[in-house]
Amino acid sequence: MSKTVELARHLEKLHINNMYKNDFYWTWDKTDEELEAVFTVADALRDLRERNKSTRVFDSGLGISLFRDNSTRTRFSFASACNLLGLEEQVLDEKKSQIAHGETVRETANMVSFMADVVGIRDDMYIGEGHKYQKTFMDALEEGYRDGILEQRPTLVNLQCDVDHPTQCMADMLHIIHQFGGVENLKGKKVAMTWAYSPSYGKPLSVPQGVVGLFTRFGMDVVLAHPEGYEIMPEVEEIAKKNAAATGGSFRKTNSMADAFKDADVVYPKSWAPFASMEKRTKLYANGDQAGIDKLEKELLAQNAQHKDWTCSEELMKTTKDGKALYLHCLPADISGLSCPEGEVDNSVFDRYLVPLYKEASFKPYIIAAMIFLAQVKDPVKTLMAMDASDAHRKNF
Amino acid sequence: MSKTVELARHLEKLHINNMYKNDFYWTWDKTDEELEAVFTVADALRDLRERNKSTRVFDSGLGISLFRDNSTRTRFSFASACNLLGLEEQVLDEKKSQIAHGETVRETANMVSFMADVVGIRDDMYIGEGHKYQKTFMDALEEGYRDGILEQRPTLVNLQCDVDHPTQCMADMLHIIHQFGGVENLKGKKVAMTWAYSPSYGKPLSVPQGVVGLFTRFGMDVVLAHPEGYEIMPEVEEIAKKNAAATGGSFRKTNSMADAFKDADVVYPKSWAPFASMEKRTKLYANGDQAGIDKLEKELLAQNAQHKDWTCSEELMKTTKDGKALYLHCLPADISGLSCPEGEVDNSVFDRYLVPLYKEASFKPYIIAAMIFLAQVKDPVKTLMAMDASDAHRKNF
Amino acid sequence: MSKTVELARHLEKLHINNMYKNDFYWTWDKTDEELEAVFTVADALRDLRERNKSTRVFDSGLGISLFRDNSTRTRFSFASACNLLGLEEQVLDEKKSQIAHGETVRETANMVSFMADVVGIRDDMYIGEGHKYQKTFMDALEEGYRDGILEQRPTLVNLQCDVDHPTQCMADMLHIIHQFGGVENLKGKKVAMTWAYSPSYGKPLSVPQGVVGLFTRFGMDVVLAHPEGYEIMPEVEEIAKKNAAATGGSFRKTNSMADAFKDADVVYPKSWAPFASMEKRTKLYANGDQAGIDKLEKELLAQNAQHKDWTCSEELMKTTKDGKALYLHCLPADISGLSCPEGEVDNSVFDRYLVPLYKEASFKPYIIAAMIFLAQVKDPVKTLMAMDASDAHRKNF
Repeated sequence: MSKTVELARHLEKLHINNMYKNDFYWTWDKTDEELEAVFTVADALRDLRERNKSTRVFDSGLGISLFRDNSTRTRFSFASACNLLGLEEQVLDEKKSQIAHGETVRETANMVSFMADVVGIRDDMYIGEGHKYQKTFMDALEEGYRDGILEQRPTLVNLQCDVDHPTQCMADMLHIIHQFGGVENLKGKKVAMTWAYSPSYGKPLSVPQGVVGLFTRFGMDVVLAHPEGYEIMPEVEEIAKKNAAATGGSFRKTNSMADAFKDADVVYPKSWAPFASMEKRTKLYANGDQAGIDKLEKELLAQNAQHKDWTCSEELMKTTKDGKALYLHCLPADISGLSCPEGEVDNSVFDRYLVPLYKEASFKPYIIAAMIFLAQVKDPVKTLMAMDASDAHRKNF
Repeated sequence: MSKTVELARHLEKLHINNMYKNDFYWTWDKTDEELEAVFTVADALRDLRERNKSTRVFDSGLGISLFRDNSTRTRFSFASACNLLGLEEQVLDEKKSQIAHGETVRETANMVSFMADVVGIRDDMYIGEGHKYQKTFMDALEEGYRDGILEQRPTLVNLQCDVDHPTQCMADMLHIIHQFGGVENLKGKKVAMTWAYSPSYGKPLSVPQGVVGLFTRFGMDVVLAHPEGYEIMPEVEEIAKKNAAATGGSFRKTNSMADAFKDADVVYPKSWAPFASMEKRTKLYANGDQAGIDKLEKELLAQNAQHKDWTCSEELMKTTKDGKALYLHCLPADISGLSCPEGEVDNSVFDRYLVPLYKEASFKPYIIAAMIFLAQVKDPVKTLMAMDASDAHRKNF
Repeated sequence: MSKTVELARHLEKLHINNMYKNDFYWTWDKTDEELEAVFTVADALRDLRERNKSTRVFDSGLGISLFRDNSTRTRFSFASACNLLGLEEQVLDEKKSQIAHGETVRETANMVSFMADVVGIRDDMYIGEGHKYQKTFMDALEEGYRDGILEQRPTLVNLQCDVDHPTQCMADMLHIIHQFGGVENLKGKKVAMTWAYSPSYGKPLSVPQGVVGLFTRFGMDVVLAHPEGYEIMPEVEEIAKKNAAATGGSFRKTNSMADAFKDADVVYPKSWAPFASMEKRTKLYANGDQAGIDKLEKELLAQNAQHKDWTCSEELMKTTKDGKALYLHCLPADISGLSCPEGEVDNSVFDRYLVPLYKEASFKPYIIAAMIFLAQVKDPVKTLMAMDASDAHRKNF
């Protein structure tokens, strides 16, 4: 029995009917079984591809991508996922950073989607806006489908919003699952999601938020560490607490990086901007107050500079479990002495984890493909089985 | 018998041999039966797609798109049409607004077309230039094919030139045909193609020209309304007159929007620039006279501002047939109180027609696909029949 | 027996095992039989396409293109080649002209390649940098594959570096082979690779270098002509000398265009920048010395202007073999009286060779496809035979 058949049989046991024709905004919208389904299908698609099986379930169709912030790795992950399933990526190139109005979004959404099966959106720049934009876009498509404008109902993959970064965090988690030899081994493992110093400013909060919102669902002991003033969204903290309570894990906050790293099994040191400042910035931007934005940027950089000691050093790494916690990063990292004088991580630490870091990233195309697959394919078990049994190959040689 | 088979049998009766390996510049180059063939194939392709039949007639091949003016909806329509038929879109990104020289066009045209089956060009900015450019491009390809440089003869879809906008107007017309329950119900219907105020300037004339050039072929009573000074190209007016005479419809001009709207079955209120001013602008541009262009722009905006009463108001809509003429627009519209303080149409009117407007737009990908299909496929009836009978699906699940 | 079968049988006799999973940097890395294999497969793929056979060996997969210098024809050639084989092109759009750092390249290379089978890179702007960049990129992928990050080992097609331009020169050579009726007719033919005046500055040296490095392998008498101060890389001259010695041809340099053209069978007059100046420019650029770069540009333009008599005139053409040497150019050319007042070639000469020039260019997509094919397909003979025998068509109508 192939790995894919095994995975398909496991998938059969999961309750995932709600995923069909549904969007993927936040991991906490989804049940545990739905998340498990994404991991399962991601592994199956990877197995099929490795065995040179065709996974091209679409003969034609578009995957629309809309990046309202720069992106290389997520863009290529989305393009790869679409291609793997037979969809052609088409980029909708709006002017960056524009906070668009409802009516325009509604029109554009329909106009580009007549033959679209999937939409991938990144909009992470403005707190309170990113998710709202994605919701407006997809509501327009839902309405367009209901009104007979669209012949099919495209589904969304959130490629990063102001709240969550599900394709990243799900890829991170699938990496952890593989590294620890199965989801059953994660219970009681300590994760340090910690802020780290960066010479740049304004990095999105969606990664730390996504991580505490997701990792707390696996019975892990999740510690969120940051200097005072670098709070994340309180709503997400609440979710993390509830998750932890439900799974027998824990979630706590600390203002000490050392505290978080102590005996940690997994560390995720990464810079982000303070939530309150990002809210202020969104308002300044909405008012077109450039002088205010410049002033805020200066303040934030000065604030950052007070916390240069928040860095993933060799010393700190030694304090983790057996001195060899799994180091995670969504990339690109600010590497001290390599990409900047002082940054998020020591060059020697980063370098030692290069191969696992790249492997971590390699799950993203499959996570995205699995999200598309589960939202589009009516009977995913049957389709996986059919691909496994088929003579159609990815490479015909 | 499926709808596609029915349509294919109808197609069999039409004389369309000249469409094979031929370009689509202007609707008035085409016979009535050729236009009917485009509508028929568009409906058939839509039916096939809705029934999950594969319409991928190309296994490989490129569709080159060249937008010398910004575009979202036409670009996605072209990309969708190519994808539907199995062609990969490749964008030729020339610097915008450049009036290119013959020799360069000839070289570029051949260089990008070695594996191209289709070329889609939008060039609508300069009166007297857009069509000329498309012609130069396609003459180069015809020559390239004849000289053995190209192994295949790519065909053109005019995605908007300075004279006509056939994919738009054919989509508009197919929408009307469906709304009125068949082409046989259009005789005697009154159409108001009228100018409307916009706070911007310099919108192309190709839509009003395309509309009067096309809609007069269906026995409709077409009224072209605009303030003095907003004349369209006289050659196109001549075509509209001849069409009307031949089909038992009528074509007349008026300087009153109220006159045009009175009892109209269809209204198409839309801003455009005066033909004479656009000719002047082309010359200023050719001479690199930026000061002259800026001065002209100011004059034209002032001229526009004298006609703010040319707007599709609720009051005017009440004067149409039963107060509910079909409202058309090529989108995006200038909506009073929504996208601008005063514009082409009242917000409440626009809003009421949102669903039909989006449906109107939904025909464009199929119109483009039908134009490509009829120019590329030697025996379109046989190929439609084969797709209808085939087990190949768009979605393999 | 079809032409393809004939070519496949010829391919069977060549020793090309080393091509599988290998990169194509420079023609002089490859054996004579390996180059012959590229020509053979290029002709076969063209024959298959002309006979409407499907050559889509990939069902999914990406071809990544990275152009660190502007490009239209090479870009479309690469896109066409990928499409012909079933790969979807994805453009990696780095900021132009950046001299990237090793670590960043390593990360980016892996991040975009999780589902990439092929990478095409153009980086020709900085002497000593272009090839280095490609090597760094591919070493990263080799390492990524070895470390289990990538499931497949993408292969490189050098789309132009600072040293060689193999897809161009191989297309040029395949054109010559077809024009002269076979590779066996090239022995003793005289080729004039000569510098020519251009009003612009800084054109890459990769074409003249690629030409003398490749054409000397066919027993031809290759003359490299340029004014003093326009030397190419000495390493490449050494290669040309060795090639000539090995094949019974010859390689010599001259500072007289007339000398080179005298009785030539093939002429390739083309502007390039002096090697030493390009080295200087790379250093200035690395130091961020914009004033120095501007000064150098002025000097180089002045130096160019001293050699306006280096042009491919009708008079010079008359001195070639029977007055009708085959004129080559990689396009676009600087044409006197057409694209510039004084340039590389007389308008009347260029015009007379238009059709052969475009045919020369038409080989590039097939050369690229052949390079991809031979690096990816384990048993190219078998796969060619299978495509020849298959019922799968490029156009299903």
